[in-house]
Amino acid sequence: MSDISGLPLIGAAALRVKAASRVLRTLPTDTKDAALTAMAEALVERTDEILTANAADVAAARADGTPEAIVDRLRLDAGRVAGVAEALRQLVALPDPVGDVVRGSRLANGLELKQVRVPLGVVGIIYEARPNVTVDAAGLCLKSGNAALLRGSASAFGTNTALLAVLAEAGEKAGLPAGFVELLPADRASVGELLNARGLVDVVIPRGGASLIQRVVRESRVPVIETGEGNCHVYVDASADPEIAEAVVLNSKTHRVSVCNSAETLLVHRDVPFLPRLLAALADAGVALHGDDAARSAHDGVVPATDEDWGTEYLSMDMAVRVVDDLPQALDHIARWSTGHTEAIVADSARAIAEFTAGVDAAAVLVNASTRFTDGGEFGFGAEIGISTQKLHARGPLGLPELTSTTYVVTGSGHTR
Amino acid sequence: MSDISGLPLIGAAALRVKAASRVLRTLPTDTKDAALTAMAEALVERTDEILTANAADVAAARADGTPEAIVDRLRLDAGRVAGVAEALRQLVALPDPVGDVVRGSRLANGLELKQVRVPLGVVGIIYEARPNVTVDAAGLCLKSGNAALLRGSASAFGTNTALLAVLAEAGEKAGLPAGFVELLPADRASVGELLNARGLVDVVIPRGGASLIQRVVRESRVPVIETGEGNCHVYVDASADPEIAEAVVLNSKTHRVSVCNSAETLLVHRDVPFLPRLLAALADAGVALHGDDAARSAHDGVVPATDEDWGTEYLSMDMAVRVVDDLPQALDHIARWSTGHTEAIVADSARAIAEFTAGVDAAAVLVNASTRFTDGGEFGFGAEIGISTQKLHARGPLGLPELTSTTYVVTGSGHTR
Repeated sequence: MSDISGLPLIGAAALRVKAASRVLRTLPTDTKDAALTAMAEALVERTDEILTANAADVAAARADGTPEAIVDRLRLDAGRVAGVAEALRQLVALPDPVGDVVRGSRLANGLELKQVRVPLGVVGIIYEARPNVTVDAAGLCLKSGNAALLRGSASAFGTNTALLAVLAEAGEKAGLPAGFVELLPADRASVGELLNARGLVDVVIPRGGASLIQRVVRESRVPVIETGEGNCHVYVDASADPEIAEAVVLNSKTHRVSVCNSAETLLVHRDVPFLPRLLAALADAGVALHGDDAARSAHDGVVPATDEDWGTEYLSMDMAVRVVDDLPQALDHIARWSTGHTEAIVADSARAIAEFTAGVDAAAVLVNASTRFTDGGEFGFGAEIGISTQKLHARGPLGLPELTSTTYVVTGSGHTR
Repeated sequence: MSDISGLPLIGAAALRVKAASRVLRTLPTDTKDAALTAMAEALVERTDEILTANAADVAAARADGTPEAIVDRLRLDAGRVAGVAEALRQLVALPDPVGDVVRGSRLANGLELKQVRVPLGVVGIIYEARPNVTVDAAGLCLKSGNAALLRGSASAFGTNTALLAVLAEAGEKAGLPAGFVELLPADRASVGELLNARGLVDVVIPRGGASLIQRVVRESRVPVIETGEGNCHVYVDASADPEIAEAVVLNSKTHRVSVCNSAETLLVHRDVPFLPRLLAALADAGVALHGDDAARSAHDGVVPATDEDWGTEYLSMDMAVRVVDDLPQALDHIARWSTGHTEAIVADSARAIAEFTAGVDAAAVLVNASTRFTDGGEFGFGAEIGISTQKLHARGPLGLPELTSTTYVVTGSGHTR
């Protein structure tokens, strides 16, 4: 069960985290909340040392020629540190899911059946540049009674180490067991070990690009929750209001291009009369358009789109544009290219909205609203540990209840079959 | 997405099932219920041809020297066929989970958030001898809006083929799409293909012994729900009532030895005065006892137990017995050897019960009741597709809601961030 031969890089940390998970399992909510508050305060107090470590990571990334969209994910400033600290404080206000009775009943034979939420145990998280994940993950795992084994990217290792030092010191001072959260080395091999740590790690959550997620899915013997890849579409129906369409499309594309819930492809019904205006607004906002022939006829400077455009999560100020004959063609396009994250429709027709929401198979369907709303914070779940794009366990933003399992407790008085 | 190159054995069936899943996704409950009733009637009407096929499978298994416990799993009679037909009828009475709003709220900014249950899509099930799984799986998948890709054992292939013919004909006549359920060839290679059918199969559920489950976990690129391996313990506390202890231990061990929720190990507190009587009752019932020194002192004819006994799911009239110093030692033993299926305590002390239920990490904890109650039917969920021993998605009996995923539908009026 707890065999760490074959895990030279992560074995010792995994044993510490597993031991901590047994303490966390039964820790009172008060203790967890006090620790979250102490951790938030410590992050703000020690912002300078965090930013110093982060500046070194950012400088090294730029020197390596890292694209600016990725550097943006890596970069912290005092406001972002205050933001992650505030996310920890928001967790205090959220209910503790552990011990919740999900369902309960008295069976016909008198047996009392209760399904009770329990922590998952040890949660492994593999993530790329964004160091805020270090804090969000530690906080969400703690509040849900789980211990966390974090494997961040090499590019953020200095920042993550600084953050971990602050969290661990503040958390342990507030009564948490040592090892409630651990940072693994950023070697490529440490991912492989994590994916093979059956019996030590209860679930692995990868947060990152397609190649990371594919590797985790292919190699992992530990159960996985897939997250994050977002090739999101906005479909503008013939019944759409022009102003709503323009607002939703621009916001979905341009509000923050480097995140998974930004839109990558615009699908427009051929009867939409305001396509030229819509494309001009995108171009004015600085979006580089890749389109089919109809889109190229509607606006100058649209470059031809290929299958690669339909299949790419740009994470940049690029957008693919296709004009479709009808809503079913939009659904076919989405079925072919969607990653199952977020799909949006702008429409006034109730029939079109119903057809779209029934026909799309995704974690979230947005109706007359920006794709950017698919987010644990926006949904009111507090900080999220990722957005699940798989169908098992949890789909969409992963908040506290999604980080728990359950046990059936069945009480009798000598019942036999 | 629907690439079937590399899937020569299952590709064509998988495409049919995937196409059917798109129809099943939006099928009204009435149509599904009518089909379930028709399938149940057809099974009863055509019992003779099913039993003829089954008799051939049973004869072949016996000729191969298959152990009787396994032959018992394979064997059908008119009563068992009527039983699986009745399980289909019970599904009609259960609520359809598809379309249920799991949660819903209006966010502060006016967005309307709904989390709605949707089918998983295509469910792959790999199972061993028991042919009743063929019917249970088809029925549960249908009621929950899923299409089913079944891979039964070679030993039951004749029986499964006969059952499938009945189900498919009755189902299609009642309005289901062709391919709502398909039986895959029983080759070893068909399992490998199923485990690699990402994009065609949404989840694989293995039902069977440890080696099958380990293979599935190791090889699968499709998400897995682990089921079934049950090395279940009964702990008899010092505070236990002697009659309840005897009833629960005997029922847990002897009611049906070939199933995953039967008990394999008895742990007894050293202060229990009635250990000799308890072991005599087990021996009188025909149980072969494997014990530690203290157990061997309490009853003649107990053979010495080794680590292999603690770790074995006997599935036979054998039981391992260990005398423990206290409840924490029982918890340590369970943590070391449990498969996370079902653990039971017999006790009158509320403190002991609380300590046991908090300390055991399993799908089900039974208090003063037989381990045999961990069962979807006993829990009132209707037929079950298996008992999950993993922590993700669903733990314990897998009923209808456990065969669904969800989609967040978020409705605004031009909302942007």
